[in-house]
Amino acid sequence: MADIAEGRVGIDDATAQLRRLPIEQVDRFATLDTHRHLRTGFPEVIFCAGKTDDQIVAIVRVLADREGCVLATRMRPETAQRLAAEGLEGVYHDGARLYQLFRTPRPAPVGHIVCCCAGTSDLPVLDEAALTAETMGSRVDRLADVGVAGIHRLLRHADLLQEANVVVCVAGMEGALPSVVGGLVSAPVIAVPTSVGYGAHFGGLAPLLTMLNSCASGVTVVNIDNGFGAGYSAHLINSRIANAAKGAAA
Amino acid sequence: MADIAEGRVGIDDATAQLRRLPIEQVDRFATLDTHRHLRTGFPEVIFCAGKTDDQIVAIVRVLADREGCVLATRMRPETAQRLAAEGLEGVYHDGARLYQLFRTPRPAPVGHIVCCCAGTSDLPVLDEAALTAETMGSRVDRLADVGVAGIHRLLRHADLLQEANVVVCVAGMEGALPSVVGGLVSAPVIAVPTSVGYGAHFGGLAPLLTMLNSCASGVTVVNIDNGFGAGYSAHLINSRIANAAKGAAA
Amino acid sequence: MADIAEGRVGIDDATAQLRRLPIEQVDRFATLDTHRHLRTGFPEVIFCAGKTDDQIVAIVRVLADREGCVLATRMRPETAQRLAAEGLEGVYHDGARLYQLFRTPRPAPVGHIVCCCAGTSDLPVLDEAALTAETMGSRVDRLADVGVAGIHRLLRHADLLQEANVVVCVAGMEGALPSVVGGLVSAPVIAVPTSVGYGAHFGGLAPLLTMLNSCASGVTVVNIDNGFGAGYSAHLINSRIANAAKGAAA
Amino acid sequence: MADIAEGRVGIDDATAQLRRLPIEQVDRFATLDTHRHLRTGFPEVIFCAGKTDDQIVAIVRVLADREGCVLATRMRPETAQRLAAEGLEGVYHDGARLYQLFRTPRPAPVGHIVCCCAGTSDLPVLDEAALTAETMGSRVDRLADVGVAGIHRLLRHADLLQEANVVVCVAGMEGALPSVVGGLVSAPVIAVPTSVGYGAHFGGLAPLLTMLNSCASGVTVVNIDNGFGAGYSAHLINSRIANAAKGAAA
Amino acid sequence: MADIAEGRVGIDDATAQLRRLPIEQVDRFATLDTHRHLRTGFPEVIFCAGKTDDQIVAIVRVLADREGCVLATRMRPETAQRLAAEGLEGVYHDGARLYQLFRTPRPAPVGHIVCCCAGTSDLPVLDEAALTAETMGSRVDRLADVGVAGIHRLLRHADLLQEANVVVCVAGMEGALPSVVGGLVSAPVIAVPTSVGYGAHFGGLAPLLTMLNSCASGVTVVNIDNGFGAGYSAHLINSRIANAAKGAAA
Amino acid sequence: MADIAEGRVGIDDATAQLRRLPIEQVDRFATLDTHRHLRTGFPEVIFCAGKTDDQIVAIVRVLADREGCVLATRMRPETAQRLAAEGLEGVYHDGARLYQLFRTPRPAPVGHIVCCCAGTSDLPVLDEAALTAETMGSRVDRLADVGVAGIHRLLRHADLLQEANVVVCVAGMEGALPSVVGGLVSAPVIAVPTSVGYGAHFGGLAPLLTMLNSCASGVTVVNIDNGFGAGYSAHLINSRIANAAKGAAA
Amino acid sequence: MADIAEGRVGIDDATAQLRRLPIEQVDRFATLDTHRHLRTGFPEVIFCAGKTDDQIVAIVRVLADREGCVLATRMRPETAQRLAAEGLEGVYHDGARLYQLFRTPRPAPVGHIVCCCAGTSDLPVLDEAALTAETMGSRVDRLADVGVAGIHRLLRHADLLQEANVVVCVAGMEGALPSVVGGLVSAPVIAVPTSVGYGAHFGGLAPLLTMLNSCASGVTVVNIDNGFGAGYSAHLINSRIANAAKGAAA
Amino acid sequence: MADIAEGRVGIDDATAQLRRLPIEQVDRFATLDTHRHLRTGFPEVIFCAGKTDDQIVAIVRVLADREGCVLATRMRPETAQRLAAEGLEGVYHDGARLYQLFRTPRPAPVGHIVCCCAGTSDLPVLDEAALTAETMGSRVDRLADVGVAGIHRLLRHADLLQEANVVVCVAGMEGALPSVVGGLVSAPVIAVPTSVGYGAHFGGLAPLLTMLNSCASGVTVVNIDNGFGAGYSAHLINSRIANAAKGAAA
Repeated sequence: MADIAEGRVGIDDATAQLRRLPIEQVDRFATLDTHRHLRTGFPEVIFCAGKTDDQIVAIVRVLADREGCVLATRMRPETAQRLAAEGLEGVYHDGARLYQLFRTPRPAPVGHIVCCCAGTSDLPVLDEAALTAETMGSRVDRLADVGVAGIHRLLRHADLLQEANVVVCVAGMEGALPSVVGGLVSAPVIAVPTSVGYGAHFGGLAPLLTMLNSCASGVTVVNIDNGFGAGYSAHLINSRIANAAKGAAA
Repeated sequence: MADIAEGRVGIDDATAQLRRLPIEQVDRFATLDTHRHLRTGFPEVIFCAGKTDDQIVAIVRVLADREGCVLATRMRPETAQRLAAEGLEGVYHDGARLYQLFRTPRPAPVGHIVCCCAGTSDLPVLDEAALTAETMGSRVDRLADVGVAGIHRLLRHADLLQEANVVVCVAGMEGALPSVVGGLVSAPVIAVPTSVGYGAHFGGLAPLLTMLNSCASGVTVVNIDNGFGAGYSAHLINSRIANAAKGAAA
Repeated sequence: MADIAEGRVGIDDATAQLRRLPIEQVDRFATLDTHRHLRTGFPEVIFCAGKTDDQIVAIVRVLADREGCVLATRMRPETAQRLAAEGLEGVYHDGARLYQLFRTPRPAPVGHIVCCCAGTSDLPVLDEAALTAETMGSRVDRLADVGVAGIHRLLRHADLLQEANVVVCVAGMEGALPSVVGGLVSAPVIAVPTSVGYGAHFGGLAPLLTMLNSCASGVTVVNIDNGFGAGYSAHLINSRIANAAKGAAA
Repeated sequence: MADIAEGRVGIDDATAQLRRLPIEQVDRFATLDTHRHLRTGFPEVIFCAGKTDDQIVAIVRVLADREGCVLATRMRPETAQRLAAEGLEGVYHDGARLYQLFRTPRPAPVGHIVCCCAGTSDLPVLDEAALTAETMGSRVDRLADVGVAGIHRLLRHADLLQEANVVVCVAGMEGALPSVVGGLVSAPVIAVPTSVGYGAHFGGLAPLLTMLNSCASGVTVVNIDNGFGAGYSAHLINSRIANAAKGAAA
Repeated sequence: MADIAEGRVGIDDATAQLRRLPIEQVDRFATLDTHRHLRTGFPEVIFCAGKTDDQIVAIVRVLADREGCVLATRMRPETAQRLAAEGLEGVYHDGARLYQLFRTPRPAPVGHIVCCCAGTSDLPVLDEAALTAETMGSRVDRLADVGVAGIHRLLRHADLLQEANVVVCVAGMEGALPSVVGGLVSAPVIAVPTSVGYGAHFGGLAPLLTMLNSCASGVTVVNIDNGFGAGYSAHLINSRIANAAKGAAA
Repeated sequence: MADIAEGRVGIDDATAQLRRLPIEQVDRFATLDTHRHLRTGFPEVIFCAGKTDDQIVAIVRVLADREGCVLATRMRPETAQRLAAEGLEGVYHDGARLYQLFRTPRPAPVGHIVCCCAGTSDLPVLDEAALTAETMGSRVDRLADVGVAGIHRLLRHADLLQEANVVVCVAGMEGALPSVVGGLVSAPVIAVPTSVGYGAHFGGLAPLLTMLNSCASGVTVVNIDNGFGAGYSAHLINSRIANAAKGAAA
Repeated sequence: MADIAEGRVGIDDATAQLRRLPIEQVDRFATLDTHRHLRTGFPEVIFCAGKTDDQIVAIVRVLADREGCVLATRMRPETAQRLAAEGLEGVYHDGARLYQLFRTPRPAPVGHIVCCCAGTSDLPVLDEAALTAETMGSRVDRLADVGVAGIHRLLRHADLLQEANVVVCVAGMEGALPSVVGGLVSAPVIAVPTSVGYGAHFGGLAPLLTMLNSCASGVTVVNIDNGFGAGYSAHLINSRIANAAKGAAA
Repeated sequence: MADIAEGRVGIDDATAQLRRLPIEQVDRFATLDTHRHLRTGFPEVIFCAGKTDDQIVAIVRVLADREGCVLATRMRPETAQRLAAEGLEGVYHDGARLYQLFRTPRPAPVGHIVCCCAGTSDLPVLDEAALTAETMGSRVDRLADVGVAGIHRLLRHADLLQEANVVVCVAGMEGALPSVVGGLVSAPVIAVPTSVGYGAHFGGLAPLLTMLNSCASGVTVVNIDNGFGAGYSAHLINSRIANAAKGAAA
């Protein structure tokens, strides 16, 4: 603690670093953080909800040109059609509402993430998580419909779960899956509540609270339906482990 | 449906029945439903929260004299001492805060209820449920600390659970236990959320929502910390099954 | 408690049993629990909300072929039309949005359940509960529009209510019906809040809280609009009583 | 509507009236509305919560001297002792935490209000309502412990309820009482939810929502535990009816 | 209290009365309380939300034939067209979504109610309240757009407000109107929160809480957007005062 | 405090002033406060949500004729087209859903407000705030997409922010922007949460709570999506400072 | 907008400024922002809740020595006694729980703020607001107990309110005061909800929602009981106006 | 996906594994999962809230004897004194309320975690997180009082933050810290909301929602005040990276 308490150490480096951070202004509506790739390991991701098609097209074009790869989430199908019509060559995933564009060759996926979900209706969120991690470079296995009311469906995959560097658990309804998985594995578990449910589910509040109160240790939580956030964090963890194993600091 | 739709059938019986229902007024503050024993199978139970010691003593005395047995819940320890000092001979259970008094011999317990709880801290509520059902005449087995984060603790009791006529599941924190149990048994499951937890637990709201949204079928729910209600309903179900097996209608 | 506390009893049986539990994987999106029929007395029920028509058709077909009977809830009318077009011969109930398919002869209904609802607008949920219990094999009587603001409408059916093995009470608005019924009968009462209401009803929260706080003992609660869950639990209780009366363990 | 739409009618009267309204400043902390007696029929009532004993003593003294009668609610017992020690001669009601002081002879009570409550624990709020209406000059009957889970306890008082000009219904737990009473009487019903309950009661939220969503017409609601407000409104209605019957405008 | 405490007084009358209460079963979906007119002063009112057009037509027809007058609320315009097509001769009020049908001559309106609202957008709820009271026989004045942010708009109507037997205050946004009106008048005030607002208004929760916490005495509250309930209660109060003045018991 | 405590000072002025306040009744549905321009510095602003097109046209016409300028918020595009068709010459801003009409020359804008927002999707609310302040006469700079997850995007505008008389901060998602800005500037900061987000965002509740709990001093908050309110308050502050600098009291 | 959009302008100034910002580390638990005085016009204020007495003493000592003045809020009385015992010479204000220490002469207060509150129980929060603004250098008038249920109590102060540069409105219960004040004045209004109330007040949620939904323009809101925040923002606005009038930029 | 879909792979291993899992029953109240050390890398941790001192002593003794190390959280100081009196030799940390006991030599800490908190009052939660990770074997740096309202306090530690394998961010009030940190680093960030705050903070709900809605990617969240959970997950991630770098599988 002593060293840190002096506090002034490194202030010149901090401001020097800030000075170097570039942006790119897209018209008046977006300020792209073009330094993010270096700073956080991946270009800025586009959250499409609330943006007009014109805005999305402009941002995708700038990112494709500058970064060579684009990841966009919560995209309406019509926007994907518009992007194709504009000559942008990405791939759109229907259920997950996710758009990927790659102009540079993709390296072999690294490490190992398992993404599992409790019910069939949770699949779109599972796919958003898995596709995000895959887009960023992780190797991912998927397990669907392994909810706790038929516990043997999950237990038969115990070995696979225990081999993963990170497990992403997606669940709507009561969201109990991460508590059982968290007790089976020693890897960190990232829990994603979904809005699948009705009545006293309150749009995902029920599984969100379940996951925050999990009696299993090692479980952290992201926002309701935030498959992207879970996949992103899972990749950060998985790639660091994989890179460390290769002898390269992340 | 046809018969029922006429609607007037039975109206004389209904009013005749209502006419027969006696009460006993205790001072100005309580109106005891002395017909309840016949109508619902057990004398009125005293919910002590919010009542003064004077009121509780007066009600216990009337019920002891008229019914021969008393069940009182949510009783403060000081009230139990006061009852003893007044010469009332019941037994007080500390953790469960429950008071029993019997002046008539108790018949052999019938049927089979299993009451299980997720954590050590849930024990007082488990005991309130089990003691209630036992007071009313059911045979009860208890399983403590079998929460889902160490799923093998629960699975080793699968046989016992599958033999029960009813299972009561008590759980705080995220309250996932009834979902797993509901998938293991064919008996009805009564789920009791507890206020054991903190933060986004909101005093038991988290496990309450979990249980209401359970993906396991056959699970019904009572109020937070309502061990009494669960034990009462469990006994109603269990005694009807046991009585039916004996060839006597409940 | 002594026997149970040893804990290791039965562990071989438990794992042996788990080993035997079969599943059937339907494409990548569903993992059917084909052992459930034996374990819990009824094949897996399909919750259609959030599933695509393609997924539902595939699951219905597998269950129809393997189990001979299918129960599906929350089905859109278009899905029912699609199933018919695919040659699946089930029956769709409009208000209840419930689908039944039977390929084997149905046994005579057993026992006695009364399903009552407070208002005309609660009928679809009442029907979901009653149809679920009937599909599973219970005998059911229905009482519609017997809410407590005209208490004589309910009281005239007191005899019928008191003959039932279980009573299901469906109510929106303030949801007071189960409290009055719970005081009239000695059978367990399963309360179903509905989303019928407006303003401070908050989509069914008001009657849900009412029912959880019922001053009548013997009332347990299911999720808002969960007629299926109430009917399912009611059948579990009713069939056990009926079977016990016949001398056959449930 | 035409007459009102001109809008300027009466503006001189309005401002003239405002000009006449007197106040009395008590130190810097209170601005007594000494015109309220004339304008609304009763002197300002003191809500003691959050006020210091010094402040309450000062306000009671001013009101006693100017108005000849004082009504104070939510008073701590210590404050009542302090008032007595200061020579102020009022009466303190323990359960209701209400303080009355009269220096002028009280007229005979008028009209008829029935105040009923569901459980023994609701008595303090019932008393606050009844004492408030009595202090203001109404005749009040009380019915305690007539909750709906033993409906015959309430029905035997149907005649009394139907004779009242107004009925005040006080209930904690699920708060179903006003819905049943509202269906039995043609008088307006004022419903008071209480904080008596636990768990998903949320400090009175449950019966508050119940009462706001009552399926019985003619029910209006006041804040949780607000016996004062219910008694005050009940008196306004009752005294107007009684006065009209006497041929005197309220 | 002494007389009431005996409790058995009147039990024969109560059951005798219950025996006399008739109903009329409409198909299987509705149980009309045809005794309500005598018991509560007005025939059963139809709450149309959640009912099918077929159900509404059937109920309107029975009530029109038996009672000679019909009041239906929350009616969709298409339902009104269907009723007209079926030859039912009632009047539909667009904004208020309220339907009236009279087959008997209407007596002259009695007493005096003032219904006021805070903003133009609250008019439909104001109209539901006013039309309900008028349908039942009360004389009503309306004041629109007199919210507290321009307090002189309200103050100029102080005389009119002070002449009323009851005041109904309708307000969305922050719902402050009843607090100001409650301080100006000695009549009871019935407050109606509306869903007019956005953001932290939470569909009317904001003005509902405002009104429940009003610092003005004499204010009672109904559910969000429940103009009907306010008009109904206002009429109960107003007609009793008017009838008492005429020397006729209500 | 002494002077104020006497309380009666100024009462004649107050009523005299109230007497002078004119209104204009528009049909029965609106009561325009035509004195507001003098009293608060700007004519009444029209909140269009919940008003019919007919009502809006009538109000715009009266205000245009009497005041020479109109500001209307939350206007549907169809209403703007209707206004144009009726010959009213105002300008409609699409994203902000705001309508301006000027018949008198606009003075040069005064002072300096900076309006910034966290994300591209917050732009419509930013524009509502900025256009409101500009309509009222303030000079405004806009900064878009400067959210805290790329803090250098904001820091590069530190000088501009520090020159402003007031800063308006618009943010959805977690709403952290005002906390960082509040620590950088000595001007008052007005924070506007937006409904941009999903899941546990609860329609803007998340950033609203964030802003109310800001650890930065000098931050006040308006309702979710209330760009109008922020712009209005910002103008009140900015114009007073600008006017004071000019030697003219606001 | 053009200039700002280039974005890189000023980046060197921003980082240069950040480099200059000093801190002072107090043991390991606090990092004082000693540059804040220059940057925001006042030294860092100490929020005492959650800090130990030892921590508070250490921070007060550092600030007193470096800045010559200290403002601390939410201080327990025992902490104030401890500070006095340690020889620190500040003044503690009981109700407001606020501590001031000045070692340099205080300049004459500038400008004009009016702080008003609805009820006597709101006084501690009013005082926290007024004392904060006074500590920072503003001139403040106080108006207590002017709630809207006796509107003439407020209206008699209309002139005083209209002379203020800023008005702070403090109110518990339903919190309607700022809506009325906002309609009377052209100055910005800062609204402070308080936790004074009970039941459906939910600890201040009711007046908080009221104030956020105010139909009066020009009202911004701070957290429940946050008198400090309101006083701080009021001073920022008032001092800028006063300084502008003196010809000195703030 | 193909391989996994077959589903039956590994079922024998799964049940074989389950069969091997030992427990130790402590009296009737606790079922220790003595296999957890092997399965998840650390012995079972004791959550003391809700447990009696007797229960805690018994569990600590069993774990100390079997595992050689004990970690207990949320321990009351009196319990720690009792443990010492019983001869158990652990260390109790006051602020963090955490108890550690080691009977075996501790290996050198591995990897690098940075734990930072926003305010001095958040220190106890920071310490719970840091001590948990240290107990499990991680190297931890602490940064206190670096909240975003003085952003330069945080930025000067940018280099340290960027070197960490994981960052734990603890914050009460509005909880904005993780959003800023998440934008500065490429490591995963674990956010811990605390209950430090008041009013619309709702016991930590405000920062919890903030963190769940963070616009920074790579942020996951644990329950309010759950320093333990954050430290546990941080260690899982950090130790895997450190172990991978050493060439040893976690």
